Amino acid sequence: MTRVTLLAGGVGGAKMAEGLAALPDVTLTVIGNIADDDEFHGLWVSPDIDTLTYSLAGLIDRSQGWGVADEGHRALEVLFRLGQDCWMSLGDRDFGLHIWRTMRRGRGDRPSLIAQDAARALGVGPRIVLPTDDRVQTRVRADAGWLSFQEYFVREKCAPEIRELRFDGIDSARPTPEALAAITGADLLVLAPSNPLVSIAPILGINGITEAFRAAKAPKLAVSPFIAGKVVKGPADRMMAALGMRADALGVAERYAGLIDLLVIDAQDADLRDPITALGMRAECRPILMRDQADKQRLAGELLELAQVTA
Amino acid sequence: MTRVTLLAGGVGGAKMAEGLAALPDVTLTVIGNIADDDEFHGLWVSPDIDTLTYSLAGLIDRSQGWGVADEGHRALEVLFRLGQDCWMSLGDRDFGLHIWRTMRRGRGDRPSLIAQDAARALGVGPRIVLPTDDRVQTRVRADAGWLSFQEYFVREKCAPEIRELRFDGIDSARPTPEALAAITGADLLVLAPSNPLVSIAPILGINGITEAFRAAKAPKLAVSPFIAGKVVKGPADRMMAALGMRADALGVAERYAGLIDLLVIDAQDADLRDPITALGMRAECRPILMRDQADKQRLAGELLELAQVTA
Repeated sequence: MTRVTLLAGGVGGAKMAEGLAALPDVTLTVIGNIADDDEFHGLWVSPDIDTLTYSLAGLIDRSQGWGVADEGHRALEVLFRLGQDCWMSLGDRDFGLHIWRTMRRGRGDRPSLIAQDAARALGVGPRIVLPTDDRVQTRVRADAGWLSFQEYFVREKCAPEIRELRFDGIDSARPTPEALAAITGADLLVLAPSNPLVSIAPILGINGITEAFRAAKAPKLAVSPFIAGKVVKGPADRMMAALGMRADALGVAERYAGLIDLLVIDAQDADLRDPITALGMRAECRPILMRDQADKQRLAGELLELAQVTA
Repeated sequence: MTRVTLLAGGVGGAKMAEGLAALPDVTLTVIGNIADDDEFHGLWVSPDIDTLTYSLAGLIDRSQGWGVADEGHRALEVLFRLGQDCWMSLGDRDFGLHIWRTMRRGRGDRPSLIAQDAARALGVGPRIVLPTDDRVQTRVRADAGWLSFQEYFVREKCAPEIRELRFDGIDSARPTPEALAAITGADLLVLAPSNPLVSIAPILGINGITEAFRAAKAPKLAVSPFIAGKVVKGPADRMMAALGMRADALGVAERYAGLIDLLVIDAQDADLRDPITALGMRAECRPILMRDQADKQRLAGELLELAQVTA
């Protein structure tokens, strides 16, 4: 069995996780991003972890890539009538999980354990691990002021130009023993095709996690979230450009230089192989767009093959 | 305008409230029972207050007399998968209110204010007032031990024989100023056809409420929850019998002796008029079964007429 540890954000990370989880000889651990967690209506919502959980449980709404299939919005309708801001679309099934998570957090249970128990109860095979049990929250500065990530992402639909990013709480956040062990004990480390700035960075930024990642003996791969200068989903392209970075696979390579051995890029980005290689990592072209389960599984298999060459 | 203050439990109380609320010259205040409130999945649920609110807002599920119409149960399905006990049927719309109530309680808002704001937001005309902002909870002793009211009523479907009743917290519970004012300032005080033991008693049992009720100058009426020795809904008959009381309109009169001027009973209980009168109150026969809005409104009108004779 190959122990694969994937660092992942939401939708793109979940697709990569589904591919790896389907491989016969892989034991998968996913370290998910918790920095876009937030409180809504007094309940603690963990969008990236939930997307991983719902995807790996087969409950995900495939048409949108997040949320639960066969969802209703009756609770949110009532909250709206009660005067609540309801721009965060939370379905009734989803509320069930948020209610339960909040109840358990209120009892003092570790967020990691709650995420693990939810995954198990909903039938998820791979382990879903939190990078920290402490609160870390992405804040985005636009011209109008600081926004929470969900305010920027959902309420403002990524429209404001970003001036600055910060991760509240990250300096004092302690890594979970599970996350450190999953990195140290991996046979293969993969950075998912997730947003490098707001999905991968707040995982690697937890004290001790980058150090463990660097010290790990396993081959370290990343899959580019960019294809021909565009992202499949989310605001990574606009965020990177706004913050003065290259918004393409080379920009991703610049972020991950010194950290990974190999960046998997799309064939459309073959012209970036040389400049990426110049940063001290290999670059390999593969079809990285994951439209369906066959795509996910094929790409996952290719990562394992590439890792054998790297190892 | 006649200021009517109704002390009420759940379904029967809500029907009486709907009747009174429909009268043109009545300003209605309902003091609802909070002693069967309980926490489910970390959320605070207030079944009698919610039944009043949903009924008076026109949102009630008429087929069952409680809960919200057009309800779903997706949140509860997820909570069940997560291992929660789900014998308390909580719908998705209902969860919206419980989430909001719990959020506001968590901020330290007075339960009375929360109930008032919910009623207003959902379009309730009459005022819904809590007897206390403190926690008072009915406990029922069966042979197997003490149960919360909802455990007895919903989970155990009222099957266990009751040995004892108590109201945890009632000795130290302070009345709300709104409840005292609604009693003192009323032109007519009505005890709804609710369970005398677990709906009306925990309201009257709050420090100062019985005293205010006794001291009030307004005529005091009660409507019997019994017709021919049976209750329309709920366990009042079995509870009263188990605790050694008469389980009929006369048993209700015995509970309310010295407190009310008039008990309205059904024509089928005409034979109880003399023994009720012997307890020091008038007894009047009226059709008290409320099957539809016309019944509710007619009975409410008759209460006002009877009150004029009493005054």
